[in-house]
Amino acid sequence: MNIKASVPPVRPDAAAVAAMASALQQRFGNRCVTSNSVREQHGHTLSWLPVQAPDIVVYPQTTEEVSEIIKLCAAARFPVIPYGTGTSLEGHVNAPNGGVCIDLTLMKRIVAVHEEDLDVVVEAGVTRKELNEHLRDKGLFFPIDPGADASIGGMTATRASGTNAVRYGTMKDNVIQLKAVLPSGEIITTARRAKKSSAGYDITRLLVGSEGTLAVVTEITLRLHGIPEKIMAATCSFPSVKDACDTTIMTIQTGLPIARIELLDALQVKACNAYSKLDMPEQPLLLVEFHGTEQGVKEQVERFSDIAHEFGASEFQWAEKAEDRNRLWQARHDVYWATLGLRPGAKSISTDVCVPISRLADCIAETNDDIRDSGIVGAIVGHVGDGNFHCGLMIMMDDPAEIASAERFLERLAARAIRMDGTCTGEHGVGQGKMKYLEAELGAGTLNVMRAIKQAIDPDNIMNPGKVLKPVA
Amino acid sequence: MNIKASVPPVRPDAAAVAAMASALQQRFGNRCVTSNSVREQHGHTLSWLPVQAPDIVVYPQTTEEVSEIIKLCAAARFPVIPYGTGTSLEGHVNAPNGGVCIDLTLMKRIVAVHEEDLDVVVEAGVTRKELNEHLRDKGLFFPIDPGADASIGGMTATRASGTNAVRYGTMKDNVIQLKAVLPSGEIITTARRAKKSSAGYDITRLLVGSEGTLAVVTEITLRLHGIPEKIMAATCSFPSVKDACDTTIMTIQTGLPIARIELLDALQVKACNAYSKLDMPEQPLLLVEFHGTEQGVKEQVERFSDIAHEFGASEFQWAEKAEDRNRLWQARHDVYWATLGLRPGAKSISTDVCVPISRLADCIAETNDDIRDSGIVGAIVGHVGDGNFHCGLMIMMDDPAEIASAERFLERLAARAIRMDGTCTGEHGVGQGKMKYLEAELGAGTLNVMRAIKQAIDPDNIMNPGKVLKPVA
Repeated sequence: MNIKASVPPVRPDAAAVAAMASALQQRFGNRCVTSNSVREQHGHTLSWLPVQAPDIVVYPQTTEEVSEIIKLCAAARFPVIPYGTGTSLEGHVNAPNGGVCIDLTLMKRIVAVHEEDLDVVVEAGVTRKELNEHLRDKGLFFPIDPGADASIGGMTATRASGTNAVRYGTMKDNVIQLKAVLPSGEIITTARRAKKSSAGYDITRLLVGSEGTLAVVTEITLRLHGIPEKIMAATCSFPSVKDACDTTIMTIQTGLPIARIELLDALQVKACNAYSKLDMPEQPLLLVEFHGTEQGVKEQVERFSDIAHEFGASEFQWAEKAEDRNRLWQARHDVYWATLGLRPGAKSISTDVCVPISRLADCIAETNDDIRDSGIVGAIVGHVGDGNFHCGLMIMMDDPAEIASAERFLERLAARAIRMDGTCTGEHGVGQGKMKYLEAELGAGTLNVMRAIKQAIDPDNIMNPGKVLKPVA
Repeated sequence: MNIKASVPPVRPDAAAVAAMASALQQRFGNRCVTSNSVREQHGHTLSWLPVQAPDIVVYPQTTEEVSEIIKLCAAARFPVIPYGTGTSLEGHVNAPNGGVCIDLTLMKRIVAVHEEDLDVVVEAGVTRKELNEHLRDKGLFFPIDPGADASIGGMTATRASGTNAVRYGTMKDNVIQLKAVLPSGEIITTARRAKKSSAGYDITRLLVGSEGTLAVVTEITLRLHGIPEKIMAATCSFPSVKDACDTTIMTIQTGLPIARIELLDALQVKACNAYSKLDMPEQPLLLVEFHGTEQGVKEQVERFSDIAHEFGASEFQWAEKAEDRNRLWQARHDVYWATLGLRPGAKSISTDVCVPISRLADCIAETNDDIRDSGIVGAIVGHVGDGNFHCGLMIMMDDPAEIASAERFLERLAARAIRMDGTCTGEHGVGQGKMKYLEAELGAGTLNVMRAIKQAIDPDNIMNPGKVLKPVA
């Protein structure tokens, strides 16, 4: 394996930008935009990383148009940055070298619903809520639910998951085939629509989580699931975070097919109560959901209650009606906004470690101590059934000492997770923010395999440069 | 993306083989073997493809020893062919250019069982039955079950699945991390042990199904599942294959979490009755299994029975005791041997198409007509819950006309599956036999992405050359 020095991305100069803008405007008219506000908005993500705006934003309507744009960029060696809803958390849509942002939000077709096969073909700009809205009448749903109403293209690119992953898996498990545009502009389809295949390298899974650095995904075929006959949600409170974690571990170990099991620490509950006008007891809380038949859910509820009571659970509140459940889950999905309310004026940094579930209680306990010792304001929320949790750190961005303290905390947290055989990112992706942890997590050899793949598929380094892989000299 | 002409594998000459054998014998003593019988045995697979023996067979005991062997091979540009149990079906372990066969059957350690995390770390030579034997006392099991008692390394390399895939997924879904040796001899670990991660390209999934053409997998961390509280198996007979298929489709669509649903056509039932001393009615048959709680299985059984009766099912036979269930499933796993009994002296060709389930009944019906019109003796068995089925074709290998007729049938079958948006291989892999279908199935662009990856990771083309990807000039 020959790892060459990374090709540095070219930063187009003013003349090159003007020429590219002119070519794109000629082809796409007012779907090519260079105004400052639109450019700035496309370098903005839900992150604390500084905005790095692209030079040009263009809005294709079809895969063929994406191909045309990329061909122009390839000829001029222009950076290409794909954009969905801008809700990523690690600077994925920043343009450190300028370039063309391909905004996929006009690609909103639901191309086909195959009810018999339990799959759907969508364009990259469709959001998860739009998809589920479309599917509802058919009795089907798509379970992956990151906090934001993200686009399916963006969720594919970051290997997203969310609250349902403990039962339904992540994007890796729910993508059947992809249509994507390579750095040359060539359009490929990565697989057929069969449920499984052993036909060569798994290019579908290679593109899932590749964050736009190998190709731009334009169309996605997803597995669907039937809306369960019966759904029951509940919250219950625990004396300590450890008791809530131990309940989770025991629930998973006994093979209970729980659909969702989310932990909120006391501070997070307080933030949610304030933001979402709820009145949950302000102590560690599990928010759970059960899917199945009438009988099956009844049985799951009984078994879970038994386990939770063993660990001191109290204040069970059950939500059976859709509107009550939705209210709870909307509050869960709004934790990002809720924590922002904890400290007006602060920006939120959302961490994302994931560890084997046997280490979860330890990892959260050490992290809680670290938050306290660092004097940081931070709340914890987690997809604990997967061993994945987030700290929402509230940081004043005009205080360099506070930023430095947060950065040191992030480094300790990543090192802690890796020491416990975990990952620095369970579901947010690498982007710009997590590049520095990958070598400790995966080793130089595995990183070099990634670099070899990147160099082979994108030799000119035009695809979302400056993300995922640190350059080598 | 620059696809260079493929590097032709070097076929070592007699002097090079003698030098390599001497170097390996010096290091590994009698764990390096060059006798004709052992070499022939290692080019033998359960396939109709001609045996192509390696020059040398070596039996490492550790990952480090695999690395040493590969370093020697890399220096001499010797082909490297990994070998598990030799039960692959498409010539995967053939050595068309000679070289060193790395037989992993001495690597049988079960490195760690993490009961709390529901995972296990095994060396590549452990077989699926050995693993489940080891796990039984702990109340855990590993569900993936190709017909043969294959090695976990081989199952990883071919992205195997089997009868449980409809509920538990394939190897792609059940591998957490891999230890593997690159063509340079470097040892990598592809991921941490956390249940999910978004940390860069999914090198784990890239190696699953890569058939030893990118690296030799030496250690695998697998997801485990709790042995269900209650298991119930059953057979039932149908007036036609279509009725059995329609029952399957309806079962999947209603979201019934069936663990196994296997179709045998009348000829296959007859073969199994003879081979396994059973007395199932000789008409199309579904063999099903339900996993869950006492209550849950009862409910599944009722719902499935209702559906099956709608499509004319009769002769339900229930198997609840482990020995009765095992007898049924052993018969299912022995279909390869059973079909061989249909036509003494014949060799079996096992096909492996997989289509979206909505097309399954059509695909099987057309294939049945084709078998009849071709005058071939062939039985059908399938993992129909996944849309995957196999024809066991009984061919006299001394009759060129019969072989030619079978080859034309295989081409029509692959084309039919691809036309129905399916794949030429659901679980057996590409090996030598299916290379010619990949371009029709995936397109030149996706194949070129695979070639770029192969060339980047294995530039000298020493890893299992002549498999998966046809060379380009």
